Amino acid sequence: MTTHVALAARAFGADAILVSTRDASLERSVRDVVRRFGGSFRIETGIPWRGVLRDWNGPKVHLTMYGTPLDEALGRISSEDLLVIVGAEKVPREVFDLVDVNVAVGNQPHSEVAALAVFLDRLHAGASIRREQDGRLRIRPNPRGKSAVESRP
Amino acid sequence: MTTHVALAARAFGADAILVSTRDASLERSVRDVVRRFGGSFRIETGIPWRGVLRDWNGPKVHLTMYGTPLDEALGRISSEDLLVIVGAEKVPREVFDLVDVNVAVGNQPHSEVAALAVFLDRLHAGASIRREQDGRLRIRPNPRGKSAVESRP
Repeated sequence: MTTHVALAARAFGADAILVSTRDASLERSVRDVVRRFGGSFRIETGIPWRGVLRDWNGPKVHLTMYGTPLDEALGRISSEDLLVIVGAEKVPREVFDLVDVNVAVGNQPHSEVAALAVFLDRLHAGASIRREQDGRLRIRPNPRGKSAVESRP
Repeated sequence: MTTHVALAARAFGADAILVSTRDASLERSVRDVVRRFGGSFRIETGIPWRGVLRDWNGPKVHLTMYGTPLDEALGRISSEDLLVIVGAEKVPREVFDLVDVNVAVGNQPHSEVAALAVFLDRLHAGASIRREQDGRLRIRPNPRGKSAVESRP
């Protein structure tokens, strides 16, 4: 599941992901995607979330099924130095207080992967998935199959 | 992971999910969400995908990292009787041929949960997460905490 969160973060335009649980295998698989598909997305794991939340200088939002509706919140959020917090089922109460905005990506239970992807897609007005990466592997549009162009350095 | 796909499908406006692998526990947990949070979302598991794809009368799209770019494809897709196919890592080649459109939700590897949520969010022009459900549990906007209103039948 965290792999999906990390890859969605990268694909929808985040610069980096910080994961509270230490996970060397997760780091390896995400860095492997970056090596093959390009870009400068970074991953760090084993990062104490409380410290990050307290020391962060830019805006901080927490994606949840509670909070301010997404449509309403988006106008108040700048993507500059933005920290987006997503958690699995039980997010500590403290998170709700340490962020600037709790954003409700709908009021129905769904998925932190879905919440993050839709939030970033909307924040970047759909532009993030149109970006080209500078990777060795580039996918080319193909209505009926898989086309990858591989360039060797 | 399939629970997340199912809940994202429901939250972003799908009527039902058909899952190829039989999974009674998945059915139970999704039906439990429907019972508590409302709506008429249905789940069936153990459904042979090939038959569904062949016999489906409405439009069929497959979400992938290959295919026609999302921006371009959306104008050609009607949500009426629409079948949306997502798969885990290895989707059989046949799927690419049996659908009307292979839609690239970006050209970077990410997640079937993210792809489905962003596709449905865009298909419904953001309206699906604003819908109210008729559930026993309703979540109310709350900038700093969790507010749920429970109604008893």
